[in-house]
Amino acid sequence: MVGYSAAVIRRQQFLIRCLGGNNSVNKNLHNSSLRMIPLGSGAGGLTLESDVINILRSITPSLGPARHKGQAGKIAVVGGCREYTGAPYFSAISALKIGADLSHVFCTKDAAPVIKGYSPELIVHPILEESDSVRDEFKRSTLAKVIAEIDKWMERFDCLVVGPGLGRDPFLLDCVSEIMKHARESKVPIVVDGDGLFLVTNCLDLVRDYHLAVLTPNINEYKRLVQKVLNCEVNDQEGTQQLLSLAKGLGGVTILRKGESDYISNGEEVSAVNIFGSPRRCGGQGDILSGSVAVFLSWARQCAAEGGWSPSPTILGCISGSAILRKAASLAFVNKRRSTLTSDIIECLGQR
Amino acid sequence: MVGYSAAVIRRQQFLIRCLGGNNSVNKNLHNSSLRMIPLGSGAGGLTLESDVINILRSITPSLGPARHKGQAGKIAVVGGCREYTGAPYFSAISALKIGADLSHVFCTKDAAPVIKGYSPELIVHPILEESDSVRDEFKRSTLAKVIAEIDKWMERFDCLVVGPGLGRDPFLLDCVSEIMKHARESKVPIVVDGDGLFLVTNCLDLVRDYHLAVLTPNINEYKRLVQKVLNCEVNDQEGTQQLLSLAKGLGGVTILRKGESDYISNGEEVSAVNIFGSPRRCGGQGDILSGSVAVFLSWARQCAAEGGWSPSPTILGCISGSAILRKAASLAFVNKRRSTLTSDIIECLGQR
Repeated sequence: MVGYSAAVIRRQQFLIRCLGGNNSVNKNLHNSSLRMIPLGSGAGGLTLESDVINILRSITPSLGPARHKGQAGKIAVVGGCREYTGAPYFSAISALKIGADLSHVFCTKDAAPVIKGYSPELIVHPILEESDSVRDEFKRSTLAKVIAEIDKWMERFDCLVVGPGLGRDPFLLDCVSEIMKHARESKVPIVVDGDGLFLVTNCLDLVRDYHLAVLTPNINEYKRLVQKVLNCEVNDQEGTQQLLSLAKGLGGVTILRKGESDYISNGEEVSAVNIFGSPRRCGGQGDILSGSVAVFLSWARQCAAEGGWSPSPTILGCISGSAILRKAASLAFVNKRRSTLTSDIIECLGQR
Repeated sequence: MVGYSAAVIRRQQFLIRCLGGNNSVNKNLHNSSLRMIPLGSGAGGLTLESDVINILRSITPSLGPARHKGQAGKIAVVGGCREYTGAPYFSAISALKIGADLSHVFCTKDAAPVIKGYSPELIVHPILEESDSVRDEFKRSTLAKVIAEIDKWMERFDCLVVGPGLGRDPFLLDCVSEIMKHARESKVPIVVDGDGLFLVTNCLDLVRDYHLAVLTPNINEYKRLVQKVLNCEVNDQEGTQQLLSLAKGLGGVTILRKGESDYISNGEEVSAVNIFGSPRRCGGQGDILSGSVAVFLSWARQCAAEGGWSPSPTILGCISGSAILRKAASLAFVNKRRSTLTSDIIECLGQR
């Protein structure tokens, strides 16, 4: 922990300006205490892309010779089963490409050799089990073993991503529920995507009131969340207000609603990121996003800890993750056009 | 074995000059008979990068049409288990990229197909076993089988790297202890890193008094070694003296203490390498280092054998390994910046 430095103070001033100063615009909001950051819209004194990129830069830690391995982030992805192996790889490798030092994957035994094979850069733990590989009488002891294994690591992680390629096997989801409970106890932030959102939507208590949880639903996942939490249908006329209500209804969980523009809320403010990305919608981009949000959220927390000040690291993490994915997708599209694949976008994550 | 040649004499003269001639500086040392080589510091008449690179060049064997496969080095990495596969791959492939002719990996049965899959260049032996894959009554015979298998190869190796991705399974570590004993009997140098250091710290006799052993601890591994050998805490005010005491306390084992600068000692002298590397701290760079030190140490021994003269090949191997990693990391960083991964650095090992 270091004291205030000129750089930290500059960061703070910039972020305070973005997050609710005179430049903020209360638009489409009924509660005037809520803040709206129309990032990328050109309104409210904040200009396009540059503001989002400035937020991203403000929370990105400086690199220096005195730093040691792990300080730039240790991320873990919980996902990967017999059926899905690409998603956890995309999420975990994106975290490294953004700048994390270590990226782990916790997956099933079947999935591990395949995910390891994609890249020697990842640390892949084959610890999860699906229902048909464990007899009923051994489920309890197997669950205990899974938890003991992940608990060895838990406190070292700066953020957990739960869901990429998780599948919906009931026993596997039981294990993951327990993992999430342990992460909460250890105050490790959790980014939930994909089948993790299926799990959470069916058991909202897993994230309710946890301010270090981020959900990143796509259009359908968002619809199910709204139905479950607000007991109504999605209403795009009142989109911002509904997002606020949803985040508030979950007790201050941060929600990144993916779409043409990404909207982000923790129940107190709404931000929008709509810098141009790519029109290509190949599968896997959500996994890049979850890995990216995990890293930026960790950095924003680190930045807050250094300055002793915290302007919602989950919001800053979401804004930055969304921005970097859009930027990388647009760069990849310039070269690859309709042939752009998720791997092409990942290769562009470093071009800032 | 060839006789003295003009090139060999030039090498000797250069190395003698570096290793203790009038240019050497006794700094931070209480014992004036000890030699300090402030490589890269610009002090004591030795200039930056160029001296380290000259040492590296001095021990690098010339290439020629008359040479045959194996003469430039045969390296073996002992590591790779169910959990870790990237680390032994990074170490073994780095050895090849530096210029070794053959690079073997001895790992568990689970790890072998994955490591083989990373590259067809490596020779991967799936001979190790973890506790839960061998019943207690078969452990003795399994250990004997493992040793018989590795003994077939042992005398062909110029250097063994023990530890990358080894894990901490008790039976596996028992096997590796035996492998180390056999390597010592065959006078094969051993570079110990990662979980190999965990093993050695708990059983110092594995390396004690073995002048062909090199330990490459990071900050935490160094701390545990100091506590175990010197029975005290790390004291950075007396860092050089403590490193000397540690190496001496182990009977002349060479220690490469990794950090912002790398410090190297065999209990008689201390060298420092602090040429600029990269501020990126992604996991896996230690594996490049262990593979690199193994090759340069072999070359330094070869060079000494050719000239009938030996100015601590372990020290020269460490200086060169440290230098080449730093150089490659800095080259990779120029292109990839914060997105640099260990694989990117390995790609730059050949650019000297």
